[in-house]
Formats: sequence, structure tokens, C-alpha cells
Amino acid sequence: MRLKVAWIGKTKEAAIQSLTSEYVKRISRYVSCETVEAPSESALLNTLKKSSRIAPVLVALDSRGRQFSSEELSKFIDQHQDRGTQELVFAIGPADGWSENVHSQAVLLLSLGKMTLPHELARVVTLEQIYRAYTILKNHPYHSGH
Amino acid sequence: MRLKVAWIGKTKEAAIQSLTSEYVKRISRYVSCETVEAPSESALLNTLKKSSRIAPVLVALDSRGRQFSSEELSKFIDQHQDRGTQELVFAIGPADGWSENVHSQAVLLLSLGKMTLPHELARVVTLEQIYRAYTILKNHPYHSGH
Repeated sequence: MRLKVAWIGKTKEAAIQSLTSEYVKRISRYVSCETVEAPSESALLNTLKKSSRIAPVLVALDSRGRQFSSEELSKFIDQHQDRGTQELVFAIGPADGWSENVHSQAVLLLSLGKMTLPHELARVVTLEQIYRAYTILKNHPYHSGH
Repeated sequence: MRLKVAWIGKTKEAAIQSLTSEYVKRISRYVSCETVEAPSESALLNTLKKSSRIAPVLVALDSRGRQFSSEELSKFIDQHQDRGTQELVFAIGPADGWSENVHSQAVLLLSLGKMTLPHELARVVTLEQIYRAYTILKNHPYHSGH
């Protein structure tokens, strides 16, 4: 399985860039992980469509979605690896939320909690949760010992 | 009202330090804000006790606590300003959670969501939520326009 983490808008803050790179590096120990940055929702969907032959499994981050514990997210990822999903995409939405088009394409709307987070911070939290999910699956002490 | 954000353990990562300072700077536009870093829970409680004549109102961040939306957190802070709370402390716990002593002293156990976050990231999210709460109270466009 390949993993993609996609978002809309450029990263301005150096600290966010640094945390983004750090977690992508850590995730890459466990799975092929790529990031996709696009200027708009439609550009993002186009880039995802062009870059793989079959439609990727899309998880759209959305505050109105379902909350997963870190353990539940690790199970979700594990199930997709088991069933032969080729590409799993976690996409962090635009400031004004996703369109109905994205909602209908996504297999899961994932919420990080009741709070409204800035998108750059939501991205770091999403990446950290994906990294944490893999450490749970691989019994790395990161999750329990942190 | 004075605000304190307290945590246990030193900050190692430069990116986290940078985000911490940035949000503290932004919060300070609205309220006197101080950070407290202590090596252990008991050291933290001692520092808090010594630094003010009356017991501060303590909010302990705890994954088993109650989730607030950003609007609910802003209302909570507003109520404490209204009722003349002199010092409001948000404290981010140790890796193995707070003791019963802290649970019994806290007026609120606040959860950032079902996920387990590393403490350094929980601190940044907490600071961002406090900043966001003040922008909501002051009708600054940060919350709606972000």
C-alpha cells in the first residue's frame, strides 16, 4: 500500500514545515508516504486522479466526521493493508470545508475532535496520528511509552 | 485575570518551541499569559501554589475529560473573566496521566479529542485553542475566516 497525505494551500510557517517533514520521515520507515500540496480542492482531486491508475481510497478530514481513537485509526489502516488497498489518501480540507463531491467520494470523514484547528496544525496532528498508528501496528513503544 | 499554561518536561524540539512562543505572543495581546515548565507533577503544583496568594482555577488536560468546541472553550474563559477569577491555569499532564490529587483539584478535565497526542503537540493545540477562544470573544476574524 502507498500512503498519501494531501492538503490545500502552501505551508508558510517554518515550524509547521519542520514538523511535517519530521513525521513524513518517520512514517516512511513503515510505508511509502508521499505528500500532495494543491492550490484548490479541484486541483487536489485532479492531481490524485492523474497520479494513479485506480481510484485511491479517500479519507477526508472533516470536523463533522467521525472521531477515531489512535487505536481505531491503526485498525482502519491495518484493514486497508489486509484487503489490498493500493493507495490510501488522507486529505485535509480547505478553510471553508469540503464540497459534497468530496464527501461522496470519501470512504471516511475523519474528525480530529470538537475543536476547530487551523489547517496547518490539523495536518501535523494527522501526520502524527498516522505515524502513531504504524507504531501501534508494529508494537513500537512510541504509543505506550510516550 | 491572569492566564498560565503549565506543562511537565522540557521542550526539546525547536519547531514546538517556535509554535509555543508564537501562540503565547498572540494570546498576550488579549490577556496576561505566562508559561510554567516543571520537571514533575508535584514540582508543577508547588510552583503554582507559591506563585499566587490564592489558589488558581485549574483546568487539567486529560484524554478522559470533557471535549469542548472552540466556542464552548471561549464561553468557559469568558465566564471566568466575568466572575472575577484571578488566575486560570491550563495544565498539560505527564506521560502517564495526572494523579488523583490533580483530578480532585481541577475544576475541569479538558480533552482535546479521542486521539492520543504527544504532550508537546497537545501543548501547541491547547495554546492555539486559547488564542482562538480570545479571537472569538473579541470578534477577531481568525476563527471564522481561517
